[in-house]
Amino acid sequence: MSILAVGSVAFDTITTPTGHVDNELGGSATHFSIAASYFTQVRVVAVVGDDFTAEHEGVLKARGIDTRGIERAPGKTFRWGGRYTENFNEAKTDFTELNVFEKFQPRIPKEYGDSKLLFLGNIHPTLQAAVRRDCPNIQLVGGDTMNYWIQSTLPELRETLKVMDILLINDGEAKMLSGDSNLLRASQKVLAMGPKALVIKHGEYGSTVFFREGAFGVGRHPFRAPTLPLSEVIDPTGAGDAFAGGFLGYIASQEVINREVLKRALFYGGVMGSFAVEDFGSRRLSKLKREEIEERFEIFRELTHLE
Amino acid sequence: MSILAVGSVAFDTITTPTGHVDNELGGSATHFSIAASYFTQVRVVAVVGDDFTAEHEGVLKARGIDTRGIERAPGKTFRWGGRYTENFNEAKTDFTELNVFEKFQPRIPKEYGDSKLLFLGNIHPTLQAAVRRDCPNIQLVGGDTMNYWIQSTLPELRETLKVMDILLINDGEAKMLSGDSNLLRASQKVLAMGPKALVIKHGEYGSTVFFREGAFGVGRHPFRAPTLPLSEVIDPTGAGDAFAGGFLGYIASQEVINREVLKRALFYGGVMGSFAVEDFGSRRLSKLKREEIEERFEIFRELTHLE
Repeated sequence: MSILAVGSVAFDTITTPTGHVDNELGGSATHFSIAASYFTQVRVVAVVGDDFTAEHEGVLKARGIDTRGIERAPGKTFRWGGRYTENFNEAKTDFTELNVFEKFQPRIPKEYGDSKLLFLGNIHPTLQAAVRRDCPNIQLVGGDTMNYWIQSTLPELRETLKVMDILLINDGEAKMLSGDSNLLRASQKVLAMGPKALVIKHGEYGSTVFFREGAFGVGRHPFRAPTLPLSEVIDPTGAGDAFAGGFLGYIASQEVINREVLKRALFYGGVMGSFAVEDFGSRRLSKLKREEIEERFEIFRELTHLE
Repeated sequence: MSILAVGSVAFDTITTPTGHVDNELGGSATHFSIAASYFTQVRVVAVVGDDFTAEHEGVLKARGIDTRGIERAPGKTFRWGGRYTENFNEAKTDFTELNVFEKFQPRIPKEYGDSKLLFLGNIHPTLQAAVRRDCPNIQLVGGDTMNYWIQSTLPELRETLKVMDILLINDGEAKMLSGDSNLLRASQKVLAMGPKALVIKHGEYGSTVFFREGAFGVGRHPFRAPTLPLSEVIDPTGAGDAFAGGFLGYIASQEVINREVLKRALFYGGVMGSFAVEDFGSRRLSKLKREEIEERFEIFRELTHLE
């Protein structure tokens, strides 16, 4: 199944304890698409400005990503600047220049009409819902959101959650969205808002998928995948999108979608997220070999597997 | 193998968002011993005051715990008061009355001399080292410590770490002890101080065991065990000691001690910790059936097990 991904393409200026980059190619659609491209055909819908060159597009094309849905608008591409301190848990934003992204109205090319899986990257929930309506052939919708939308557009977000099959967010977002500081109760409240499955990302501690009763098969319990403890994190920007790309990319590559597939997908999400943080932007992610992915998947499996 | 456990017996006054208890039987030796008692014979060394009644001792005896090493001293038993806020991650201490614990000099009864596994609960590192010297027949030493000892008695603690085979601490303690905020690097630095294995507890995210190269067999990687997301935490006091009790208790019950045993032990640690938080003090822990433990072990396994 091919994936249609909607989100941002951005130029990021990032400072971490280990280095600095200016105008590095980033954005949720970029990180997601590159990660997912190792598993399936990916089609992107996004907007860029005059400063988005053939070289930038080449990074995506080199991974076989269909870029016909990337709209060129007059002006500059979305820019974000931020920095991480020693523990890498949270970025401090230096600046946000929305530029052409401010008036982004996603348009789905006709050629994308047969896509079966949709990823709604972290954009305004009303735009997410509009994209969903424009893609009638979609069989599974995965989506992301963030604190900003939870705080400023909650009614719109709650509408959009009704059309999301799988929501991928982090601990803080799950607690904020549900208003509950207990993770299990928070997951139940979020699942009651619409999604059939909820993936909560715990950063360096891995991730958990919670299922709505009866969704994707039977089973009483959530499922947890680890991450690999890494001796050096270079840049966590985009790790969440890379996680989503590995997770949904693996799902798209499977014949059937059931709990066992979602469990393995959670491991692949962790694998792609762990590669993402090993270099700035998508540098590490865009130059992987499939064998490296399988090798790390096995390490992740060994990390929690009892004989 | 029987376990000899040294630590505190205390009366805890605890306030959580869900309730309050006064003078609840607690302390590291109590929680540890009760958890470990489901797996093996446990012998306790601790000190109590005149206020420690036959009823209190009965809680331990009911679990078959050998209490001959609990010394009665004139005065009151160690008392601690504290409270937890909504997220349960950290206790705020209301008061600490060391009482008879202040002059605690652990004495090992002759009858305990054939113990093979020693647990050094969270007491002054110099006392921990003295106990180790008094137990020449011990084959494996597990131990705990806390921020207070890392900050105020680091040289003594570093001496004691040389005689510990397995150190069990949490993320914050590992980072403080190593001076490194990266968990993998922190683990390597702590292992270089002496322990053959380091168990780092991540609270609601489970735990990881790191091995010194070649210790307990071969293998390149750490191992991670989950915890069960619980819908209600009643009281986290003693969960770390219950974890240690499950972990070392399971190890003591095995014929050989290798990495595979330590991995399963990590799961049993998580299982006992998850029971501990379900009620105040050791109330839940002291009334378990072995079948409940095995049932939860299977749930933990399913939580991370891929087909």
